[in-house]
Amino acid sequence: MKELKKQKIGFIGLGIMGKPMALNLVKEGYSLSVCDIRPEPVQELAALGATVCDTPRQVARQCQVIITMLPNSPEVRQVALGDNGIIEGARPGTIVVDMSSIAPLASVEIHGKLKEKGIEMLDAPVSGGEPKACEGTLSIMVGGDENIFEQVRELLLVMGSSAVLVGDIGSGNTTKLANQIIVALNIAAMSEAMVLAEKSGVDPEKVYQAIRGGLAGSTVLDAKMPLVLKGNFKPGFRIALHIKDLQNALGTAHELGTPVPLTSLVMEFMQALKTGGKAGDDHGGIIRFYENLAGVEVRSRG
Amino acid sequence: MKELKKQKIGFIGLGIMGKPMALNLVKEGYSLSVCDIRPEPVQELAALGATVCDTPRQVARQCQVIITMLPNSPEVRQVALGDNGIIEGARPGTIVVDMSSIAPLASVEIHGKLKEKGIEMLDAPVSGGEPKACEGTLSIMVGGDENIFEQVRELLLVMGSSAVLVGDIGSGNTTKLANQIIVALNIAAMSEAMVLAEKSGVDPEKVYQAIRGGLAGSTVLDAKMPLVLKGNFKPGFRIALHIKDLQNALGTAHELGTPVPLTSLVMEFMQALKTGGKAGDDHGGIIRFYENLAGVEVRSRG
Repeated sequence: MKELKKQKIGFIGLGIMGKPMALNLVKEGYSLSVCDIRPEPVQELAALGATVCDTPRQVARQCQVIITMLPNSPEVRQVALGDNGIIEGARPGTIVVDMSSIAPLASVEIHGKLKEKGIEMLDAPVSGGEPKACEGTLSIMVGGDENIFEQVRELLLVMGSSAVLVGDIGSGNTTKLANQIIVALNIAAMSEAMVLAEKSGVDPEKVYQAIRGGLAGSTVLDAKMPLVLKGNFKPGFRIALHIKDLQNALGTAHELGTPVPLTSLVMEFMQALKTGGKAGDDHGGIIRFYENLAGVEVRSRG
Repeated sequence: MKELKKQKIGFIGLGIMGKPMALNLVKEGYSLSVCDIRPEPVQELAALGATVCDTPRQVARQCQVIITMLPNSPEVRQVALGDNGIIEGARPGTIVVDMSSIAPLASVEIHGKLKEKGIEMLDAPVSGGEPKACEGTLSIMVGGDENIFEQVRELLLVMGSSAVLVGDIGSGNTTKLANQIIVALNIAAMSEAMVLAEKSGVDPEKVYQAIRGGLAGSTVLDAKMPLVLKGNFKPGFRIALHIKDLQNALGTAHELGTPVPLTSLVMEFMQALKTGGKAGDDHGGIIRFYENLAGVEVRSRG
């Protein structure tokens, strides 16, 4: 394959995550062919020299490497395999790097269909959210063929500070789901414990300081507890998005036949918060589910 | 009060935790009056110069500061308030430092009864387990009066590397429960996620390496995942003991009226493991509950 900077790179999906990622590629000297259903981000990229395409098919006509950054499995399936999709325009040897967070089994299925036409695919979901997308310091978890991964690694490292190949196609999304399960449950663990402390009349800030250095310590505890104590639930990472990830986790678990009882419960807590109008809150706001039931607030007394 | 090294310090309960704690006090030059229902550890301490007492009452006759390190709330209640208990032998101004992990509401109740006789009490449960008890590097969480705490702080710092006053009587045990809730749930979170990864066919060791540096990172993940990958469930901290702590957490939560749905579920997982003969395993063995249901093992492929 021609050196990546001497060819057009496709970028489909210029949303909250996709746009800053595409901008980082432009900044680094890559020339892009872009496509999105909304005109604004497309025009913004066009003003910086990107070629505007009306369909994923048209992107695929122009590019041997295509990045997709879309909301969920159905959108990726549509863009890759649907009418005017990538599959209609791509030559054999084209590489699709799907950086969306979708169901791992959807990655496997879409990869299978593309592969029949000789099109390669990696699943490469990210963690770090919008701030790290802007900084180009995302953590990228990649599933797929090692040889394909090596061909696009330099491109990934423009958008992320790390890109780790974890296994075959779908493994990136499986890793992302494992990550999102642990994060959701660790937030709920903190919440359950701290609301109990508050309800007991003990200052939760002192409890936090007393336990953070021991076996109960976690990145979640240090990232979220100071915000909870201030009553700051500004996202960060929205409950609505974590609901999407847990939906994929539950679907995957049920399909594979592995139990996820705690994930299932925390999903219910988040659904209750959504019903209460809190889907736009940071996922640290899971604690409000407990606070509402217990009739207390875990806030700083300082 | 007379300098602590110039008086007899009482020590009641010379079990897996109490004995090494008492030995550290002797090593540091304190002279002890000891009591336990089993003769072996009493004789071991006697051989090092400790005075042997037949009852807590007798300990209280000889000591103005008495440490108790007992299995659970009923034992502390018995030793403090029962026949031949501390309350029968202690003079006003005596300080009881209960270092057992018990229900916070039991601490409050026992403190109330002792206080009627002018006897002071702190609840000062520890974390760190047997190894840190032997090293004298326990983390000690203290509830009670600040002035009383100051009088015994030097004594506590012989047994622990830190002693933090978190609030009024019972606060030490509330903090310990919050700690134990978070630890149990973080282990379960790791288990639920990693069994899903394994069942998906992804190498759990690679998933661990990919996510440990991000928001899913935790002390539990770094302490337990390497042991799980080796199939090493040697305690460490036994599931049987964690069951006891969660029993106290559930009891406290129900009495106060605060919800602990995840703790309640993880308690059921641990009960199932106990039924399966695994109560003596390290609490990292919670993952076996999931492994058994999913029919996989999360082990190193290396």
